[in-house]
Amino acid sequence: MRGLRKYLPILEWGKQYNRDTLTSDLVAACIVTIMLIPQSLAYALLAGLPAEAGLYASLLPLVAYGIFGTSRTLAVGPVAVVSLMTAAAIGSLGFSDLTDKLLAAACLALLSGGFLMILGVLRLGFLANFLSHPVIAGFITASGIIIALSQLKHIFGIKASGDNLIHLLHGLLSNIGEINVPTVIIGVAATTFLFWVRKGLQPLLLKLGMSKRYADLASKTGPVFAVVVTTLAAYLLDLGSQGVALVGDVPSQLPGFSIPNISMDFWLALAGPAALISIIGFVESVSVAQTLAAKRRQRIDPNQELIALGAANIAAGSTQGFPVTGGFSRSVVNFDAGAETPAAGMFTAVGIALATLLLTPLLAYLPKATLAATIIVAVLSLVDLSILGKTWRYSKADFIAVSATIIVTLTMGVELGVSAGVLLSIIIFLLKTSRPHMAIVGQVEGTEHYRNVERHQVITHPNILSVRIDESLYFANAHYLEDQIDSMAAERPSLRHVVLMCTAVNAIDMSALESLEALNRRLTDRGIKLHMSEVKGPVMDNLKHSSFLQHLSGNVYLSQHRAVSDLMEHDYCI
Amino acid sequence: MRGLRKYLPILEWGKQYNRDTLTSDLVAACIVTIMLIPQSLAYALLAGLPAEAGLYASLLPLVAYGIFGTSRTLAVGPVAVVSLMTAAAIGSLGFSDLTDKLLAAACLALLSGGFLMILGVLRLGFLANFLSHPVIAGFITASGIIIALSQLKHIFGIKASGDNLIHLLHGLLSNIGEINVPTVIIGVAATTFLFWVRKGLQPLLLKLGMSKRYADLASKTGPVFAVVVTTLAAYLLDLGSQGVALVGDVPSQLPGFSIPNISMDFWLALAGPAALISIIGFVESVSVAQTLAAKRRQRIDPNQELIALGAANIAAGSTQGFPVTGGFSRSVVNFDAGAETPAAGMFTAVGIALATLLLTPLLAYLPKATLAATIIVAVLSLVDLSILGKTWRYSKADFIAVSATIIVTLTMGVELGVSAGVLLSIIIFLLKTSRPHMAIVGQVEGTEHYRNVERHQVITHPNILSVRIDESLYFANAHYLEDQIDSMAAERPSLRHVVLMCTAVNAIDMSALESLEALNRRLTDRGIKLHMSEVKGPVMDNLKHSSFLQHLSGNVYLSQHRAVSDLMEHDYCI
Repeated sequence: MRGLRKYLPILEWGKQYNRDTLTSDLVAACIVTIMLIPQSLAYALLAGLPAEAGLYASLLPLVAYGIFGTSRTLAVGPVAVVSLMTAAAIGSLGFSDLTDKLLAAACLALLSGGFLMILGVLRLGFLANFLSHPVIAGFITASGIIIALSQLKHIFGIKASGDNLIHLLHGLLSNIGEINVPTVIIGVAATTFLFWVRKGLQPLLLKLGMSKRYADLASKTGPVFAVVVTTLAAYLLDLGSQGVALVGDVPSQLPGFSIPNISMDFWLALAGPAALISIIGFVESVSVAQTLAAKRRQRIDPNQELIALGAANIAAGSTQGFPVTGGFSRSVVNFDAGAETPAAGMFTAVGIALATLLLTPLLAYLPKATLAATIIVAVLSLVDLSILGKTWRYSKADFIAVSATIIVTLTMGVELGVSAGVLLSIIIFLLKTSRPHMAIVGQVEGTEHYRNVERHQVITHPNILSVRIDESLYFANAHYLEDQIDSMAAERPSLRHVVLMCTAVNAIDMSALESLEALNRRLTDRGIKLHMSEVKGPVMDNLKHSSFLQHLSGNVYLSQHRAVSDLMEHDYCI
Repeated sequence: MRGLRKYLPILEWGKQYNRDTLTSDLVAACIVTIMLIPQSLAYALLAGLPAEAGLYASLLPLVAYGIFGTSRTLAVGPVAVVSLMTAAAIGSLGFSDLTDKLLAAACLALLSGGFLMILGVLRLGFLANFLSHPVIAGFITASGIIIALSQLKHIFGIKASGDNLIHLLHGLLSNIGEINVPTVIIGVAATTFLFWVRKGLQPLLLKLGMSKRYADLASKTGPVFAVVVTTLAAYLLDLGSQGVALVGDVPSQLPGFSIPNISMDFWLALAGPAALISIIGFVESVSVAQTLAAKRRQRIDPNQELIALGAANIAAGSTQGFPVTGGFSRSVVNFDAGAETPAAGMFTAVGIALATLLLTPLLAYLPKATLAATIIVAVLSLVDLSILGKTWRYSKADFIAVSATIIVTLTMGVELGVSAGVLLSIIIFLLKTSRPHMAIVGQVEGTEHYRNVERHQVITHPNILSVRIDESLYFANAHYLEDQIDSMAAERPSLRHVVLMCTAVNAIDMSALESLEALNRRLTDRGIKLHMSEVKGPVMDNLKHSSFLQHLSGNVYLSQHRAVSDLMEHDYCI
C-alpha cells in the first residue's frame, strides 16, 4: 500500500480533499483555462500543427499528471520550447500533409512518454543533472529568439520557414514584399497591446487600488482579450477575404483514443528527438515544480515526476496531441490563483473539454497573427543574455559551454544546440580533470595546517617535497601525475622524500594505481622514497586490495603533519 | 635551430654518430630484418592483403620513423592488432578485388598518418590517456583471441571468414569437413615447433652454456627456421598441387610513390576506423617506447612520437603499404640486439629492400599455414585474462570497463570493442563523480585533524555539522549536494552551523555555485548558517568573482580547526 501510494500521489492528497480545497482548485482551474485556450492554440501553431492538436494536448495529459504528479501546483500542457522542438523533429521528416504531421506529433509524444517512464521506473532522474544550468539558460534564450523570429511571418502575413536564425531571416527578407497590410495591423496592434498588458497594466491596476494578487492575475488575461477583440474584428470586417490568415475550422469534438499508425522508420527517426524533448521538458518542468514547492515547503520527487510526465505524454500521444510538460508562466498563474492540489489541473482539463465542444465555431475567425503575438510576447521574457556575462566573469569553461549552446542553437537548430552544450560541458570537465592542479605545500607556522607555498607564508624542508594533488587519480590524468612528480624530483638533487598529500584524491583507479607503481619505481631509481598522507578511507580500502602498499618505498601517514614530523625525525637519526 | 631539432631528432643523434654506434646498429638491423621478413608477410596475410604489402610497409615507414622518432630502439612496421583492425576496416567496405583492398589499405594508412600528424602538431597526445590501462589490456587480449582464431582456417586449409568470435567459430565449424591433410600437417608441425622454440629452446641453450642474451636472440629466429624448412618442403614435395595454399608470386620490385585513387565515399568511410587505428597504434607504440627508454634512462616525447608515427604511416600509405606502428616483440629484439640509434631501423629497411629484390622468388613456395602458425604463436602471448581478476579485486568500475571491452570486441568486432571500452570508462567516471562521497567529520583528539566520524574516534558538537565533500562540485553533482546537505540538516533539529570542508573541492562551476546559493537560502530558512573551510586558492579566486560570498550566511575559514574553534567560542558568547 505504501509502495502504491508512492507511485500514485493522488491516493495521498485525495484522502484530505474537502470543500475548501475544492473551491480553491475550481477558482484556479477557471483562470488557468482562460489562459490556456489561446496558449494551446498558439503552441499548436508553433509546432506546425492544426489548432485542435493544442486543445487535445491540454485534456487527458492534465488528468494523467493529476494522478501521478508530486507537484501540487504544476500546470502541464503544451509549452513554447518543447513545441519548437516538436516542430523541428517533425520538420526533419519532410511531411507536407497535415494528417501525417499530426501522426508524427502523436508518435513523438508517445516515444517521449515511454522514455520518461523508463527513466522514472529505473530512477535515473539524476541523469538530467548532466544538463548544466548555464547550458539550459543558453538553450532557452536561443530557443526564445528562434521562436520569436519564427512567428514574425504570421505578424507580416508572409510565407517563410526554417528552424534556425539564418533560414528564418533569409525567408523573412526574401518574402518581405508580400506583406499583407490588414494582417500587419492586427499583428502589430496585438503585440503592442500584449507588451503593454505585461509591463503597464499591472502597475496601473495597482495604482487604481487593486490588490497585487488580482492585478497580477488580471494582467494574465491580456491574451484572451486580444483573442476576443481580433476574432470579432475578423468576423465583422470579413478580414479572411482580405488575405488575413485565420485559424479556420476546428472540429467541435473530443479526441478518441488511438495509437498513431506510422511506419517503423519514422518511429526510429523520431526516437532521438523524443529523448531530447523528454530531457529538456523534464528539466524545465522539475525546476518550475521545485521553485513553487519550496515556497509552500512542499517536496517534489524527481523520479516520480518522470513517471507523471511520462504518463502525461503517453496520454497526449494516444489522444492526437503532441509533447507536453510543465509550463512556467501557467504554473505560476495556477499557484497564484490558489490551486491546492493537482485536481485543479483535472478541472482545467474539463474546462478545455467544454471549450472544445462549445467555443470552437467561434475560433474559426481567430487571426493567426494574434496567436503569433501572444507567442512572441511570451517567449521574449525567456530571452536573457546576461548568462553570458555572468559565466564570463565566473568561469570561462561555463562561458564556452553556454556560448556554444547559444550559437549552435541559433545557427544549426535546437537538437544540435542542446546536444553540443551537453557534450561540450562534459568534454571540458574531462579535460580539466585530465590535467589536475597540483600544489607544493608547506606548514603554516604555528599550525598543523599545510598550504600552497605560492599563496601562503609556509615552512618547507629541502629534502622533503610535499605535493598536494587536487584531483581524483584516474586514467585520464594518471600519466600526467607520473610525469609531473618525476620532473619535480629531477629538479631537486637534494631530495630524499616525496609526500603525496591526498586530501583531494577521492579515488585511485587501476590505471592510476599502475602509474603510482611506475612513479614509485622511478623515484626509487633516483634514491627518493615515496610517501602518502591523508589517504581517505574508501581509497585506502581499495589500495589494501592490491599489492601497491607492499611495493611502496615509503609510508602512508594519517596526516600531512605526522608525515613531515616523522620524516624530519627519521632524517636527523641518519 | 632548436625548434628544428625538436621536430627532427635525427639532427640530435646524427651529430654523435660514429663507428661504434654504426656497428651496433648494423648488427641489430640484421637480426631484426631476419625476424621482420616472416612477420611482415604474416601480418599482410592477417590484414587480408597480398604478401608484398607487408614488405612495402616495412620499407619507407622505418626510414620516416628514423628521421622523426624520439625512441632510440623502437622498431616500426606492421603489428598484429593494427593489422587485425585494418582487416576489419577494409572488410566493412565489401571489396572482393585484391587491388581495391590494397588501395583501401594505403588510404587507411594515409588517413591514419594525417590524423596522427595533426594530433602531434596540436600537441594533443594526452588525449590517448582517455584509453585506460585496463581497457587497453582487455582490448589486446580479446584481439589476440580473435587473431588466433582467424588464423586457424590457414592451419586447417579451409575457407572461413568473419571478424568476431561467433562468425569465426561458425565459419570454422561449418567448413571443418574440407580439411586439407598436408596443410594440417605443416600447420600443426609449425605451430608446435614455434611454441617449443618460445618455451623450450631458450632454457635448452642456456643449459648448453650459451649466454642469456644470445639464447634469447636465437630463440627469436624460430619463425625464420620454420619458413625455410616448410618452403623447402613445399618446393621439393610439390605441396601446392596437393591443395596446400602457398604465398605465390610476390613481385621482385620496390614500390613506387602513389596516392591511392579511391572515391571520396571510401575516404569518408575509412576516416573513423583510421582514427581508432591511430590511437590504438600510438598507445601501444608509446608504451613500448617508454618501457625501453626507461631501461636506458632516455626520454620519449609523446607529441613528437605522434608526428613520427604519422610520418611513418604517410610513408606507408604512399608506397602501397598499410598502417604501421611500433611493435612490442620486434622492438625488444632490436633493443636486446644492441641498437643504439634509429639508424638501426633505417638499416632494417635496407635489409627488407634487399629481401624484396632477391628473396621473393623463393617465397612463392612458402605455405600460408606457416605464416598462420607464426601469427598464432605470437599473439597468444598477448592474451592475458588475469586483468579480469586484478580489476575485480581492485575496482569494480575498471572490471566493468574491461569486461565490456573484451565481450564487445569478441562478439561485435574490434572497432566497437575499443569504442565501448573508452565510452564506458568515461561514463562510469562521470557517474561516480555525479554522486560524490561525503563524510561527516570530527576532530581527532589531540590534533587539529578532522576525519570521518564512522572510521575514526573523533570529537563532534551537536550544533555544528562538519561535512567533507569528496569531489569537485560541478553540474552533475550540484543538485545531489544540495539535497544531501539539506536532508542532513533536516534530521538535526539542534543544528546551528553547517561547515563544508572543501579540502577535496578542486573546482566549483556555475551550476554548483547556483546550488550552493540555493542551499544557503534553504539553510537560512531553517535558521542554520552555512560556512566553508579549507577552500583552495583557485576556487576562492573564482568565488570572489561572484556575489556568493556576500550572500553566504556564514564565514570562510582557512582551516576546519579554526572554523570549529571560532564557532564554539561564538556560540558560548550568545
